Amino acid sequence: MKRIGVFTSGGDAPGMNACIRAVVRAGIYYGLEVIGIGHGYQGMINGEFIPLQARSVSNILQRGGTILKTARSEEFMTKEGRAKAAKNLKEQGIEALVAIGGDGTFRGAIALYEEHGIPSVGIPATIDNDLYGTDYTIGYDTAVNTALESIDKIRDTADAHDRLFYVEVMGRTSGFIAVEAGIGGGAEYIAIPEEQTDYEEIKNVLKGFRKDKTSSIIIVAEGDEEGGAFKIARKVKELYGFDYRVVVLGHIQRGGSPSARDRILASKLGVAAVEALISGKFNVMVGEVKGEIKLTPLKETFRRRKELDPYLLKIAKILSI
Amino acid sequence: MKRIGVFTSGGDAPGMNACIRAVVRAGIYYGLEVIGIGHGYQGMINGEFIPLQARSVSNILQRGGTILKTARSEEFMTKEGRAKAAKNLKEQGIEALVAIGGDGTFRGAIALYEEHGIPSVGIPATIDNDLYGTDYTIGYDTAVNTALESIDKIRDTADAHDRLFYVEVMGRTSGFIAVEAGIGGGAEYIAIPEEQTDYEEIKNVLKGFRKDKTSSIIIVAEGDEEGGAFKIARKVKELYGFDYRVVVLGHIQRGGSPSARDRILASKLGVAAVEALISGKFNVMVGEVKGEIKLTPLKETFRRRKELDPYLLKIAKILSI
Amino acid sequence: MKRIGVFTSGGDAPGMNACIRAVVRAGIYYGLEVIGIGHGYQGMINGEFIPLQARSVSNILQRGGTILKTARSEEFMTKEGRAKAAKNLKEQGIEALVAIGGDGTFRGAIALYEEHGIPSVGIPATIDNDLYGTDYTIGYDTAVNTALESIDKIRDTADAHDRLFYVEVMGRTSGFIAVEAGIGGGAEYIAIPEEQTDYEEIKNVLKGFRKDKTSSIIIVAEGDEEGGAFKIARKVKELYGFDYRVVVLGHIQRGGSPSARDRILASKLGVAAVEALISGKFNVMVGEVKGEIKLTPLKETFRRRKELDPYLLKIAKILSI
Amino acid sequence: MKRIGVFTSGGDAPGMNACIRAVVRAGIYYGLEVIGIGHGYQGMINGEFIPLQARSVSNILQRGGTILKTARSEEFMTKEGRAKAAKNLKEQGIEALVAIGGDGTFRGAIALYEEHGIPSVGIPATIDNDLYGTDYTIGYDTAVNTALESIDKIRDTADAHDRLFYVEVMGRTSGFIAVEAGIGGGAEYIAIPEEQTDYEEIKNVLKGFRKDKTSSIIIVAEGDEEGGAFKIARKVKELYGFDYRVVVLGHIQRGGSPSARDRILASKLGVAAVEALISGKFNVMVGEVKGEIKLTPLKETFRRRKELDPYLLKIAKILSI
Repeated sequence: MKRIGVFTSGGDAPGMNACIRAVVRAGIYYGLEVIGIGHGYQGMINGEFIPLQARSVSNILQRGGTILKTARSEEFMTKEGRAKAAKNLKEQGIEALVAIGGDGTFRGAIALYEEHGIPSVGIPATIDNDLYGTDYTIGYDTAVNTALESIDKIRDTADAHDRLFYVEVMGRTSGFIAVEAGIGGGAEYIAIPEEQTDYEEIKNVLKGFRKDKTSSIIIVAEGDEEGGAFKIARKVKELYGFDYRVVVLGHIQRGGSPSARDRILASKLGVAAVEALISGKFNVMVGEVKGEIKLTPLKETFRRRKELDPYLLKIAKILSI
Repeated sequence: MKRIGVFTSGGDAPGMNACIRAVVRAGIYYGLEVIGIGHGYQGMINGEFIPLQARSVSNILQRGGTILKTARSEEFMTKEGRAKAAKNLKEQGIEALVAIGGDGTFRGAIALYEEHGIPSVGIPATIDNDLYGTDYTIGYDTAVNTALESIDKIRDTADAHDRLFYVEVMGRTSGFIAVEAGIGGGAEYIAIPEEQTDYEEIKNVLKGFRKDKTSSIIIVAEGDEEGGAFKIARKVKELYGFDYRVVVLGHIQRGGSPSARDRILASKLGVAAVEALISGKFNVMVGEVKGEIKLTPLKETFRRRKELDPYLLKIAKILSI
Repeated sequence: MKRIGVFTSGGDAPGMNACIRAVVRAGIYYGLEVIGIGHGYQGMINGEFIPLQARSVSNILQRGGTILKTARSEEFMTKEGRAKAAKNLKEQGIEALVAIGGDGTFRGAIALYEEHGIPSVGIPATIDNDLYGTDYTIGYDTAVNTALESIDKIRDTADAHDRLFYVEVMGRTSGFIAVEAGIGGGAEYIAIPEEQTDYEEIKNVLKGFRKDKTSSIIIVAEGDEEGGAFKIARKVKELYGFDYRVVVLGHIQRGGSPSARDRILASKLGVAAVEALISGKFNVMVGEVKGEIKLTPLKETFRRRKELDPYLLKIAKILSI
Repeated sequence: MKRIGVFTSGGDAPGMNACIRAVVRAGIYYGLEVIGIGHGYQGMINGEFIPLQARSVSNILQRGGTILKTARSEEFMTKEGRAKAAKNLKEQGIEALVAIGGDGTFRGAIALYEEHGIPSVGIPATIDNDLYGTDYTIGYDTAVNTALESIDKIRDTADAHDRLFYVEVMGRTSGFIAVEAGIGGGAEYIAIPEEQTDYEEIKNVLKGFRKDKTSSIIIVAEGDEEGGAFKIARKVKELYGFDYRVVVLGHIQRGGSPSARDRILASKLGVAAVEALISGKFNVMVGEVKGEIKLTPLKETFRRRKELDPYLLKIAKILSI
């Protein structure tokens, strides 16, 4: 192999730039040429190819976003679109890809391989942490820290006013961000898609509210089956009469300088992805499981469900007494 | 004078604790006893009086919220409520008050003086910066910095995706936070209550969007006459077809450790309020105008409107090209 | 068991308060009384015992430092001192201890058991991460993040001036903080106690400096065998002539609000320590190894050496090209 | 006038990028071409000229450092060096300069005008705040906030251990950073170059230490006549026996994303500098005094001494009781 491409796709996540840097420098270290592809799959179709050197990725490690940009591509969803992308890649002499993103990214990579023989290694980068085959995805730790900084601020004002706040965090259909932000933020209750919202328990934890607890915070995952923070807040008010404020943290969770953990993880997985490609491992995602690099077939990463740690759910309950 | 009371009231603002600390220590420095009153006017009615020493306010300078708590009191709105508050204050031997808060706080202080002869000095503490008689209110600088940290994060993801974001900031009926967060965050347009939203101009600034500008951010003050970020975003989409995301920053702007500027201002005004009381100045707010301590009759602080700096509005336009 | 004591000892670490909170609430959840002991072993001798309720530990999760204070006790180093501590503990009806700290803390706990039969469970809390039996210690992740925030700032000024900086981080005799701060901060070279400083390699990585690299940062662990950042900097200057600036981060690495990871780890280990005590496990440290709670005899935690991840050392070299 | 140059010089300061952006966009807004000059005066000699467009300065507002780089130029200190710089500027058709920096920067600008007739407007950007003609310099507010974040962290560990810390901050020969960091950080004593260090007073403020004050922090300006934090700490220990720790904050105070205040000030002064040039005002610095733009002859900005606010010095003493 002489030349590889690297791109980011899907929702952006803090640490993507650290990961691009690691892929580029590891590629060069191992004697490869590395081509950056702008705007993900759409850029393959449009021909956004930029040769990257070791210095091209200086001073980006600490930046949020992605210097290669990301996009969702309608055109790549079509057979013609993918054919055009594959043709462009081949014309550029790109023999393999490093695909940084989430399940949509990996589905695209699988299609490019099955239809056009272009092999990929995937790197999990999404704040939602919802990919099987890695304990943490790149961006997740930063998103939880960002949520916590906001929750700490909300705690200040909740405490000054003896108020009840509902805080909605991201996470699509999984409660990873919610559970860690909830434990880390000292939440009284955490509503997640994986469990039915238990209004009886909410009533119990709020009993202490305005008796001896002076402020209360309930964390709601955006994908919760009840439909988000506003719905739960209104229902609790109807049922038990508790006044409330709602904050929807939204897209601030996607940005910002990556945390230490995300920079380290992105650096590790970037190097590991290049090493996997070099040793002929394709159509796999590189992840970190129990502290060690592990390869998982791309398909499994989204077909199998990564479970929440039941011990975390247990201590969340213990600590909210 | 031998004994004074200090309390916080209305919406909380970062720097209130720094201000309480300054009032307490300045009071003791000048030979007074200082009684902290919990939960604002409601605490006067309920009898929440706590003698404070120099050490009672150690290590609070850097904390958000208010150790004295704040509350809105229905009961104090009644003549009976105020009579009860005044009676309690007199029983405690409290001869004068330092009232930390916004216009509601000052209206209460005026009533206590007019009806019961209890004199006050007010200190402006509100993130909205909407009080006449001081260039900045305590909490405003922190709120703008908090908004900017969020806008910087949103810029990361906006830039990665080439997206248009509307960010709604606090400020009640004034655009102070919006204007400074807009200039500091590099906003393409700033919608404020003081000016009619100019859709033609929004069209013009967004013309560059996806041509050479890759991301765009529009700041909307919560009190904007159009009704907030969602409304403006939808109308721009209808008129000109621009897709968007909305983030409402909400209560995170009220919390957090106060900025340098807010700590200094809170310290200055806390000392100045005690010095004003000692020299027999009552029913005034201590503010900082053009770098100097200035006293303004409490009534004027909310009756007169503080104007936005027209030069700031001008440079916001120049810099969004 | 009916009553346990909890204390912090040795160097403070962010997350100690989150851990105290978890021990107290888990204790109460499982039906125990929890007594807080002030100033570590010295407080046992002096009789600083404070009964703690669930609400006693409200709103401390996010605070740096330790509400129970910490101290180094000369008196406890003597047999008489320990006898006095044990007598006081028994008079208080404290049947077992949760000891939060590092190796010195655990040595004390062992002595109390061997000499006076008072059993303990240890919780690893030190920014240095130098305890065997846990992948991470409480405080380590925050310290690395704090170091990175500083390194990012130094990168700004290094880059503006095309300068070479040496940054000294904490870590006593181990390079854990240095390695992760180095990788996360994009360091050109990382000098750690575990490896001899390789001046030839420093020369090689600095060759690019002022050619195409515009700034360079070298991280030095305080315990490096060469004697710290100033010594290495002077020697490199003598040998190869590179001008430099030095920053010694120092005690800022000990403070600050704990990171998400440290809050979660502190919460987990606090609950796990109480559960270990209840199930009769003594003289062990609760740690997290490969995502799971693990008990290790207290003695092993400091007698066995925790090794740096060799893959991290490798990628540090790859990424500095 | 058709074409102007802009450059940064001397020590870098947060907000320089925001200022460059403002100069470029205001220039274009008013119909000028703007040429960026790399590495300050050295870049004029070496011919580092880069035409800048409105989009060239996108997404830099929030970044520390300076995209135009800065340097100290030995060559420009010579008559020949300045002649070469002037020749290059004239060949580029650059008719006037916007010089962003401190007193060294302004001395250079004066020389270019007096020897070669090239006019300049200066913009004050230095963390030290030591220029006459503006209440605040660009970068000062960020530096104070950065110092405070560090002091808050040090307070955590000082408080956990009941310790005395000396913290040395930047500021060259003036105590601006020290005074505001001291008040904002709750310091027990502030040692500044403007006043002789008063060991009697240090003794008095430390009397309470370990009696009822559990931690103490003394701020020392680097330029203090006693020779910095280590010297004062040793002398206090000799005189009165207080153990101590020292932290020298150093270059972290130069970097980081600019604060709200610095972004606003940089934006204002950048626009004002261009407007001054256009209206034919030369050899002046644009500053902000009491909220209004003010022009001061370049020479006065460093010949006249800006005084510390005596009220700040007074409240520092009151609040340390």
